[in-house]
Amino acid sequence: MPATSMEELVSLCKRRGFIFQGSEIYGGLQGFYDYGPLGVELKNNIKAAWWRSNVYERDDMEGLDSSIIMHRLVLRHSGHEATFSDPMVDNKKNNKRYRLDHLVKDQKADVQAKVAAHMGVDPENFPALVAALNAEPAKASEALRTSGVRDAFSGEIGDWTEPKPFNMMFKTTIGPVADEESYGYLRPETAQGIFTNFKNVVDSTSRRLPFGIAQIGKAFRNEITPRNFIFRVRELEQMEIEFFCTPGTDEDWHAHWLEKRLSWWEAQGVPRSKIEILDVPKEDLAHYSKRTYDLMYDYPTLGYEEIEGIANRSDYDLGSHTKSQSELNLVARVSENNDSIAKLTIPHPETNKPVVPFVIEPSAGVDRALLAVLSEAFTKETLENGNERIVLKFKPHLAPIKVAVIPLARNKPELVELARQIKNDLQKLGLGRILLEDSGNIGKAYRRHDEVGTPYCITVDFDTLGQSNEDSDVSLKDTVTVRDRDTLQQERLKISELAEWIQAKLK
Amino acid sequence: MPATSMEELVSLCKRRGFIFQGSEIYGGLQGFYDYGPLGVELKNNIKAAWWRSNVYERDDMEGLDSSIIMHRLVLRHSGHEATFSDPMVDNKKNNKRYRLDHLVKDQKADVQAKVAAHMGVDPENFPALVAALNAEPAKASEALRTSGVRDAFSGEIGDWTEPKPFNMMFKTTIGPVADEESYGYLRPETAQGIFTNFKNVVDSTSRRLPFGIAQIGKAFRNEITPRNFIFRVRELEQMEIEFFCTPGTDEDWHAHWLEKRLSWWEAQGVPRSKIEILDVPKEDLAHYSKRTYDLMYDYPTLGYEEIEGIANRSDYDLGSHTKSQSELNLVARVSENNDSIAKLTIPHPETNKPVVPFVIEPSAGVDRALLAVLSEAFTKETLENGNERIVLKFKPHLAPIKVAVIPLARNKPELVELARQIKNDLQKLGLGRILLEDSGNIGKAYRRHDEVGTPYCITVDFDTLGQSNEDSDVSLKDTVTVRDRDTLQQERLKISELAEWIQAKLK
Repeated sequence: MPATSMEELVSLCKRRGFIFQGSEIYGGLQGFYDYGPLGVELKNNIKAAWWRSNVYERDDMEGLDSSIIMHRLVLRHSGHEATFSDPMVDNKKNNKRYRLDHLVKDQKADVQAKVAAHMGVDPENFPALVAALNAEPAKASEALRTSGVRDAFSGEIGDWTEPKPFNMMFKTTIGPVADEESYGYLRPETAQGIFTNFKNVVDSTSRRLPFGIAQIGKAFRNEITPRNFIFRVRELEQMEIEFFCTPGTDEDWHAHWLEKRLSWWEAQGVPRSKIEILDVPKEDLAHYSKRTYDLMYDYPTLGYEEIEGIANRSDYDLGSHTKSQSELNLVARVSENNDSIAKLTIPHPETNKPVVPFVIEPSAGVDRALLAVLSEAFTKETLENGNERIVLKFKPHLAPIKVAVIPLARNKPELVELARQIKNDLQKLGLGRILLEDSGNIGKAYRRHDEVGTPYCITVDFDTLGQSNEDSDVSLKDTVTVRDRDTLQQERLKISELAEWIQAKLK
Repeated sequence: MPATSMEELVSLCKRRGFIFQGSEIYGGLQGFYDYGPLGVELKNNIKAAWWRSNVYERDDMEGLDSSIIMHRLVLRHSGHEATFSDPMVDNKKNNKRYRLDHLVKDQKADVQAKVAAHMGVDPENFPALVAALNAEPAKASEALRTSGVRDAFSGEIGDWTEPKPFNMMFKTTIGPVADEESYGYLRPETAQGIFTNFKNVVDSTSRRLPFGIAQIGKAFRNEITPRNFIFRVRELEQMEIEFFCTPGTDEDWHAHWLEKRLSWWEAQGVPRSKIEILDVPKEDLAHYSKRTYDLMYDYPTLGYEEIEGIANRSDYDLGSHTKSQSELNLVARVSENNDSIAKLTIPHPETNKPVVPFVIEPSAGVDRALLAVLSEAFTKETLENGNERIVLKFKPHLAPIKVAVIPLARNKPELVELARQIKNDLQKLGLGRILLEDSGNIGKAYRRHDEVGTPYCITVDFDTLGQSNEDSDVSLKDTVTVRDRDTLQQERLKISELAEWIQAKLK
């Protein structure tokens, strides 16, 4: 049974060291989070699983790691300078600022209904309401003023300004002189680093169509109202693929990637039954997008929200960043580019003539993935003895700690030394983090490792040393107890057999 | 024989897809680099080796991954707002701006000697010259003006201003309102995220002294004059440890870490003989530092430059970020902190009284590590047939591609299919990237894989299929050729034995 509320996840994450509020000792910074000792392992394991599946296990993919700060012209020609914005409104009474759609979403149903009525939209169709509000700022302002829309901060009805676009990119000055040309942006998505390196990758690898470029990295969005824990944050991490293919083959590749990505999520413990595929309606698509699937995962408390987008972006991106656009028969409507110094074409596999490929973009968020994985793994169980336990049933390859090796008593050097030796031997297998857990209380250690999802606990006891008292079994010398996180079964294994046993279990 | 010049490394990096200039198609952005298909693997392998050695293989370390954008108060109390700056001078003739020490370093010897004479410093002692210039701005300005210091851009003698401090932190506005309180900084080092999370980590893991926290991540420094390829950049990646210990044990731990880090570098192929340990003279240390070792690696073209710093920072950092400073008997001289809401103490292991631990900080740069690893691996050899080859003799665990599987002819589906099968089977071993290389020209493929440092090439040929012509050996069916990068020896192995053979070689 997965998590039923965001609160229980947030609380576990803080208590067990998965995730902390950013800059917490100075009151925190909204929309920024720090991943603790277990969070960093979980995150790294998710990223490694994605890289393995999308780069190593394919023969048509290259990896990339481009810089976070990018030239302002990259983000101008990508369209982000003009359009990567959300409408925001101010409450004149207290100067608080809200993202328009979040403000309306947070109103009570009757207020929302009034706003919708004013805009002439079905109140049940929230996306349509947002579209209408965004399209007509003056009317939207009227709707807010006449419907009794309240300020979440003061709780009172606000005095709302007309919505104005707010660009969500973080800007910074580069170099010692601050003038109009010396700024850059923190990338709002990793994708742009892929497009701008298209030619570099083709030239250095001799790739031909079809092939993709994969990248994992931080992206930054200056959200007006960050919210919902790590779901909507200002500093996020993305796992993006741009898969380049011959125009005409794009629909097949789009279908291919939808299937591939769903089975990847399944392998991470996020089942298809919890993901709705939203085939984004034509009228909601950006002008350059042929078709987009949004994968919507059923988050606790939040409900269905986007966990990944898989878009057919036609030749818009490379077309936007290429020079000599007019010679290239682009399908997408692109803005003029007199700044780029590179022609972003590749020989057509059949005609050998230069072509701007189409691109399929599966784009997932690492933080959102982690939240879904955590939510699915979260289990509250009542044990036979009536006690309740919280256990994270991670797939073994995602578990932050693979095995905890526990000496039964911390004040017995022989036990601790043997436990350390076992830990060191298992660590060499390269399976991930193996922990020596010498807190000295076996019950507490088991509880802790259930709560952090450690698949196996190995206990080294006096029987292991052959030092048990008379009525115990001497044949237990050189054996240890292995406890299974999910079944709670304990079995006795020879130390010499541990490596093979664990390897088989964790593969 | 390692690389003899930076140019040959830069050229190889671009040609083979290790490293590209950032935002290159828009003319490039100075101080920013993108890691290509091979660069990302090499970088990830270096990071994984560091994490394995410093987190997994120890019992006294926790990992962390904190956010890049931090609260302005973090960087105020760390001291970076006041002191993380370099003196810069402007040339009034063309408004170009230079970092003072870089400007002087780039002058001809006779000009440098004049500047030194003016400052009353030995011209052979460049660090002393820089210290003198930084200490006396007015005199420095005179020295520049009277010594004929030239502008690198114009080549002419400049009209130099007095040096002024320039803060190297990137600043950005957070949230929708830009006012005096709504900015944050891109962290100039990952370390601050460790200090601000000290209490979170202790509370969630129950760690006692001594223990450390390790972090890998991006850091940003707005260098006035970025230079020397990926050596001095504006966006960099760091691998930092803050090791917390009881005051009094700090000198032993400092020695421990010096030894540990040197042997780590050795294991990555950067030998001790190429690293000079600089025991930083007392007068050059920051006031809070008890002692610092700078590891200086002999880079091609650049000469000895810092590859890692290992500092004993006393209780300065936690002391600076803690509340109730006056109650804590701090050794370091810290600025007053009325903003922090946390007491950054931990029980003394003997007395159990709260103590602010001392910290040993081994801090290495990923990019600088990569440059050193690349430089050491770089080898130009003359073969027996008189041909010259370039080969990157990476340690196997760092090689971007572990094995290339090459079908002898790309137009024979049986060969390609079998090669793909072998690739897939080897990939499952989890050793890193295995590449199917079906470019169709075996000689070219070998040359390419020498140049990118692939330890083994496996060739699938007609003998493998049992389809060779009459005079060849049928017993070669189901065997492949394995070529060793370094020895160039080729041996014939059974496909069924490949997995075990490769695993043994790459471990």
